[in-house]
Amino acid sequence: MTDVDLLIAPRWIVPVVPRSVVLEAYAVAVLDGRIVAVLPLEEAQVRFVPRQRIVLAEHVLIPGLINLHTHAAMALMRGVADDLPLMRWLNERIWPAETASMSESFVHEGTLLACAEMIAGGTTCFSDMYFFPKAAATAVEQSGIRACLGLTILDFPTPYASDADDYLTKGLAARDALREVQRITTCLAPHAPYTISDRTFEKVILYADQLSLNVHIHLHETQEEIAQSEAQHGVRPMQRMLRLGLLGPNTIAAHGVHLTRHEIELLAERGCHIAHCPSSNLKLGSGIAPVAELLARGVSVGLGTDGAASNNRLDMFGEMRLAALLAKGASGNAEVMPAWQALECATVNAARALGLDDQIGSIEAGKCADLVAVDLSALETQPCYDVVSHLVYAAGRDQVTHVWVEGEALLSARQLTMLDRTELLERTRTWQKRLRTLH
Amino acid sequence: MTDVDLLIAPRWIVPVVPRSVVLEAYAVAVLDGRIVAVLPLEEAQVRFVPRQRIVLAEHVLIPGLINLHTHAAMALMRGVADDLPLMRWLNERIWPAETASMSESFVHEGTLLACAEMIAGGTTCFSDMYFFPKAAATAVEQSGIRACLGLTILDFPTPYASDADDYLTKGLAARDALREVQRITTCLAPHAPYTISDRTFEKVILYADQLSLNVHIHLHETQEEIAQSEAQHGVRPMQRMLRLGLLGPNTIAAHGVHLTRHEIELLAERGCHIAHCPSSNLKLGSGIAPVAELLARGVSVGLGTDGAASNNRLDMFGEMRLAALLAKGASGNAEVMPAWQALECATVNAARALGLDDQIGSIEAGKCADLVAVDLSALETQPCYDVVSHLVYAAGRDQVTHVWVEGEALLSARQLTMLDRTELLERTRTWQKRLRTLH
Repeated sequence: MTDVDLLIAPRWIVPVVPRSVVLEAYAVAVLDGRIVAVLPLEEAQVRFVPRQRIVLAEHVLIPGLINLHTHAAMALMRGVADDLPLMRWLNERIWPAETASMSESFVHEGTLLACAEMIAGGTTCFSDMYFFPKAAATAVEQSGIRACLGLTILDFPTPYASDADDYLTKGLAARDALREVQRITTCLAPHAPYTISDRTFEKVILYADQLSLNVHIHLHETQEEIAQSEAQHGVRPMQRMLRLGLLGPNTIAAHGVHLTRHEIELLAERGCHIAHCPSSNLKLGSGIAPVAELLARGVSVGLGTDGAASNNRLDMFGEMRLAALLAKGASGNAEVMPAWQALECATVNAARALGLDDQIGSIEAGKCADLVAVDLSALETQPCYDVVSHLVYAAGRDQVTHVWVEGEALLSARQLTMLDRTELLERTRTWQKRLRTLH
Repeated sequence: MTDVDLLIAPRWIVPVVPRSVVLEAYAVAVLDGRIVAVLPLEEAQVRFVPRQRIVLAEHVLIPGLINLHTHAAMALMRGVADDLPLMRWLNERIWPAETASMSESFVHEGTLLACAEMIAGGTTCFSDMYFFPKAAATAVEQSGIRACLGLTILDFPTPYASDADDYLTKGLAARDALREVQRITTCLAPHAPYTISDRTFEKVILYADQLSLNVHIHLHETQEEIAQSEAQHGVRPMQRMLRLGLLGPNTIAAHGVHLTRHEIELLAERGCHIAHCPSSNLKLGSGIAPVAELLARGVSVGLGTDGAASNNRLDMFGEMRLAALLAKGASGNAEVMPAWQALECATVNAARALGLDDQIGSIEAGKCADLVAVDLSALETQPCYDVVSHLVYAAGRDQVTHVWVEGEALLSARQLTMLDRTELLERTRTWQKRLRTLH
């Protein structure tokens, strides 16, 4: 008999690895934040003495979902500008609002709001791209979630930094400060080809190589971006990046909406990762990413919500469903991206993109206990012929009841444990008043 | 001072008519199931003495949502067959399952489950197309919801009827039996051009004209349907229907995914109504309806979930959001179908399609009190700069707290009042066991 911290006994477990498996009457044993074993409940009862035992009679346990592309603090700008195309949305609304309001406290409190929403909806890790990463990190630590914070780089000034060198200096200082912080990793986040000069890209490559950092970038999001690059640089953004020496297995390309067959092959060859953001791409009128082709060519696709100003939900259940539906509808093939694959995109594929697939992304012995329980007893998920189908096509984030990160409960019986909802609402209202005056 | 049954005082009212208006500090007075007045709260307090007063401090009150195309009883087949194209889904899975299990009790209990899900999610009326309409009607009456029951007609036998004449006879008998039943209307529902012969269509037209009935039909859902019609009849299905004398303001065409410019103009000229079902069209790989063009040409577009076997949610909040996003993404224009228009599609447009726009579809004095309250105080809908945006892009059906149909509360503080959840779950489990044996 071995002592463990926690034994979770749900009705079903969908471990994601191995693929497409549904375990019934199994349990997960957790010690020191790690999964010790995934085994039949009967066996678990004779092998382990848990300090805490949680029986979830109508629930399915899944790996925590990973939001591969977001701007968490923009939760404070949810719904501030709708029904506008990307460039007008950025130039006329978002950038002016950010210039007027962005600060460490904006990022801290916006990220807290986003973390609360993501945790309550079954997201246990997010890949962020925003300003003031140390302020975001404080929110991550408080909320108990896991994050990869993208160290944003731009060629124009914001309240955060004055020029590319300043962004890099501040970003790398944040990286140093956060090196020992549990559950936080960092990567370089040059915003997009249309906001980054060749000279700045060269520096990004230098630091990424020297420090073995991932590069998280918006790429081929709109036709406009591509046309602008052709006019300015004579080539499409991906060609320019390739020429500069970017694009490799350390690249996380957000969006990838407009891709030629050759570019899709290139992404596959180079082992780049796509952070597919279906809601945001539709909402900004950017288009529909060729996900069927990306998957067919073996490109690793993760899913992201993008920021709450262009979605307006930080809801990975919603993105899984939409990604699966949209891939079928856009390709005219109902067999594309079956439910199990949408779940892979939202878990193990994203973990791989972040270089964390030895830690998270599936329910396997040795990995971190980043786990989510979903109650399928609701009328909305009855009858239940196929648990994986229900996770993707029928269930909503409102059916998430428990969330653990490294074995720590962040959501218990639908209640946030680390964050104070009332306080969050008050802070959010204060920001709402401030931002409203900008209109 | 006038006595009224109910005074609802929410934080906001979005009446839908007039367009794009948000009323703050207003109230709705209800007497005998009808809206008596929509007026400033202060004025309401001096004019009305309500038997019941409901204050909803953080809520927005909207007209009940109308699901313009569904097969309610198929809720019992939720998730029974995923990731398959329409024709294989029908031929290999759905039709065999229906043949083996369909009966009055299947329809009654399946429709009850669907009504429970729809009510809890803010849907107060649905336009159905299924078998055993009297059994469906019993479920509608029990649940308190409103429905237009399509009297299904097919040229092949099912457990419900043997041939077209039998379907018509049974349908018209059901119509007679249901004529005096409150909250239920009926229409003719010839299944689709590929399942209905010219001869049967001629009978449908005859009865529709004689009895002033709407005609609810699947139309131009897949490329395959169109190719088959071209091969068999030498023309596309719409041309064939036009030639037979169908297509008018009494036509509710479900799907309309594949439409030429000429066909869109024809739909506009003839005043036909489209029941756009974005989730189902994507999920079955049917394609993406040209909603931007339909709206630009002035075709009235409503929204439907289709059945739970091809969605797998009967969630009109989900369909509003997806319709708005998809119209932008597919057209490459973020300004298409702004939030207020998605809300119109899900309410007043659908009411018009059903010929019920003098009764439902907006919050106006004289109309039925079919009302839905949505709690926007959740973290997921904070901050709140724009109530209509949040209704479409950020809120989920789980934020619905109260639902009234004709002033009767069907959902109160998130609890179903007319239906017993435990009993529904038990009946659903029994059907699950029976249907499972078919696999």
